[in-house]
Amino acid sequence: MAEENWVLTVTAQTPTNIAVIKYWGKRDENLILPINDSISVTLDPDHLCTTTSVAVSPAFTHDRMWLNGKEVSLSGGRYQNCLRELRSRASDLEDETKGIKITKKDWEKLHFHVVSFNNFPTAAGLASSAAGLACLVFSLAKLMNVKDDHSKLSAIARQGSGSACRSLYGGFVKWIMGKEEDGSDSIAVQLADEKHWEDLVIIIAVVSSRQKETSSTSGMRDTVETSALIEHRAKEVVPKRIIKMEEAIKNRDFPTFTRLACADSNQFHAVCLDTLPPIFYMNDTSHRIISCVEKWNRFEGTPQVAYTFDAGPNAVLISHNRKAATLLLQRLLFFFPPNSDADLNSYVIGDKTILQDAGIQNMSDIEALPPPPETKDNTSTQKFRGDVSYFICTKPGRGPVVVTDGTRSLINPETGLPK
Amino acid sequence: MAEENWVLTVTAQTPTNIAVIKYWGKRDENLILPINDSISVTLDPDHLCTTTSVAVSPAFTHDRMWLNGKEVSLSGGRYQNCLRELRSRASDLEDETKGIKITKKDWEKLHFHVVSFNNFPTAAGLASSAAGLACLVFSLAKLMNVKDDHSKLSAIARQGSGSACRSLYGGFVKWIMGKEEDGSDSIAVQLADEKHWEDLVIIIAVVSSRQKETSSTSGMRDTVETSALIEHRAKEVVPKRIIKMEEAIKNRDFPTFTRLACADSNQFHAVCLDTLPPIFYMNDTSHRIISCVEKWNRFEGTPQVAYTFDAGPNAVLISHNRKAATLLLQRLLFFFPPNSDADLNSYVIGDKTILQDAGIQNMSDIEALPPPPETKDNTSTQKFRGDVSYFICTKPGRGPVVVTDGTRSLINPETGLPK
Repeated sequence: MAEENWVLTVTAQTPTNIAVIKYWGKRDENLILPINDSISVTLDPDHLCTTTSVAVSPAFTHDRMWLNGKEVSLSGGRYQNCLRELRSRASDLEDETKGIKITKKDWEKLHFHVVSFNNFPTAAGLASSAAGLACLVFSLAKLMNVKDDHSKLSAIARQGSGSACRSLYGGFVKWIMGKEEDGSDSIAVQLADEKHWEDLVIIIAVVSSRQKETSSTSGMRDTVETSALIEHRAKEVVPKRIIKMEEAIKNRDFPTFTRLACADSNQFHAVCLDTLPPIFYMNDTSHRIISCVEKWNRFEGTPQVAYTFDAGPNAVLISHNRKAATLLLQRLLFFFPPNSDADLNSYVIGDKTILQDAGIQNMSDIEALPPPPETKDNTSTQKFRGDVSYFICTKPGRGPVVVTDGTRSLINPETGLPK
Repeated sequence: MAEENWVLTVTAQTPTNIAVIKYWGKRDENLILPINDSISVTLDPDHLCTTTSVAVSPAFTHDRMWLNGKEVSLSGGRYQNCLRELRSRASDLEDETKGIKITKKDWEKLHFHVVSFNNFPTAAGLASSAAGLACLVFSLAKLMNVKDDHSKLSAIARQGSGSACRSLYGGFVKWIMGKEEDGSDSIAVQLADEKHWEDLVIIIAVVSSRQKETSSTSGMRDTVETSALIEHRAKEVVPKRIIKMEEAIKNRDFPTFTRLACADSNQFHAVCLDTLPPIFYMNDTSHRIISCVEKWNRFEGTPQVAYTFDAGPNAVLISHNRKAATLLLQRLLFFFPPNSDADLNSYVIGDKTILQDAGIQNMSDIEALPPPPETKDNTSTQKFRGDVSYFICTKPGRGPVVVTDGTRSLINPETGLPK
């Protein structure tokens, strides 16, 4: 380390993911080792991702982090586990243009600045911690010249936030629970990349919630300790579903994919309900979205849309193709129109071309939507205005990437502080 | 049978019951044989019961039934199963004052009129079919001089509506699933009468619902066919709970009673959610009532109230004693005040003395209720006005009785038609 005033930065972008076979329950709280395998779909980072810039400088006196513009503490055990693992895997680094040389040993003493932003509202229950931790690990690994592959990095990200390990890949990802006590084989692997099943279109309904939600960390601990059903789920039900889901993804078998994804989402919420005290993540709006999809799927005879819900009331709706997504969006807007003071531009975000396909150009087009043909009686055409905050139209997407364009760094290269 | 214009009547009153270890799933659809034992509390017929008058006359040309003032068909298989069983067990009957003599064989050809009323709103999801079928069987058995005991009658009522078998006794009742293929050992037995645990006080919150509910008959069929958890529940979980619940009732062990009742209610709703398509009986209001009770029980350190929910959103809340019931009612009225146009007299019905103990004499007393001490932050004192339709204050109660006062008969003894 020649000069003492240099700042070296790396910026990366990492997607969120949504599990279609759920992770719920740890066998090791510290290492974050799960009680069953899980499978997820990576979401398009254009619509849902974390961007993180990391910097290292001999001038930094301690590790610091800023999340969405606010400084947060890095002292938590989970962050520290990730940083310790990464430091131990760092390699020599030489930047000839800047005249910087960092040896493997130097990394033990150097400190980092981390600046992270989500391109979607936080606290909307959209797995921001998964994308965030994955991005932290990925960007620091690049900065520190860690030579391990994504699978090894996934095991590090896992120790920050379990489902973060699945955000190290695009497309369809399996988190293998592993058998080792040290967690070394509890890693994520890619089942298929984002090009494999390009037809799929995803619509997320962000549901207004009046309830304070149970954190997934404490929720899954309570489930493992008190549910009389969770062990049967983890040992008997999920292993069979994992095999079938891998097969369904491989064969792009949408009916089987839908059956498994819906059943597993419902069973995850069932074991939450079987917890003492019971955990409710879905609310009446979530239930109504499920009923709408179930009714339509039955009416069509073959599934058009799969639904899955994480630890919150938001619905993630995976459509077979663009046409089904268009028909789905019409149904969603019919049953869940926005409040009269809403702005269409902020009520449907992400890939707005689906909105165009659905023939919706303004708020009055929403009001003019006819009841879907599968609704016959009056009670089933009741509208629930304002019960959905907004919709995000997106699709399966790619894994983490390094952002080489320096202007998109979140860190000032002179000061090493957030821009 | 001397004259041809006589009418012979019997009137009976039969309670409803609420399961604390739930019945969900049949192994035989026709005989209504369950996949597990269940245990219930009989509710005080003063507040929730069915009154049924039955009549026989040689002038009747076919079996007819009137329910809550409307004629309904008796041709359904379940009614017919009950009638066939009862006719086969009828005995000779002689009424000397009226000069009537009916032989065992005559019953095969005679027809009945049945008139039935519930003393509580129908379609409120308060197990009206259980009380109704039990009352039909009990009153017809009396009329036909059936000599079998209540246990045998319970097996007949079971064929009309599964949980009806538990309404043949007061207090605490166990429905033994039985092993025989013909259902002869699938009967109800009394665990303890209504005097055994007199301290208990029950408050039912009748919850407004905007959803059309899945019938329990089709719901439990779907669960048995599609849930990956129901078999584990029926074979592994419930048998252990039944033993513990019998013990808790015997010892009047309220903490254990509460833990088991709440866990089993939640697990029943969990397997409903694990059904394809998923069944939602509880709604956001049900969830909020659970949260209120769970929070209070934890705050007190020892359970004050057990909750249980049947196939609908209504909460049945079993308080340890009168003091706990008073404190519960205050909490319920604080969180779920009536709409401003409501009338206190119809908002809290049943045993109104609990309302007096709670110091509530008019609507302004409800508005003046302070937040419960276990609520600290603002979000948890949010009120949900109008989300409960009304409350019923009641207690465990007695089994079926014959009503000897002829003026209370629902049938005109001259015409054999409803009064």
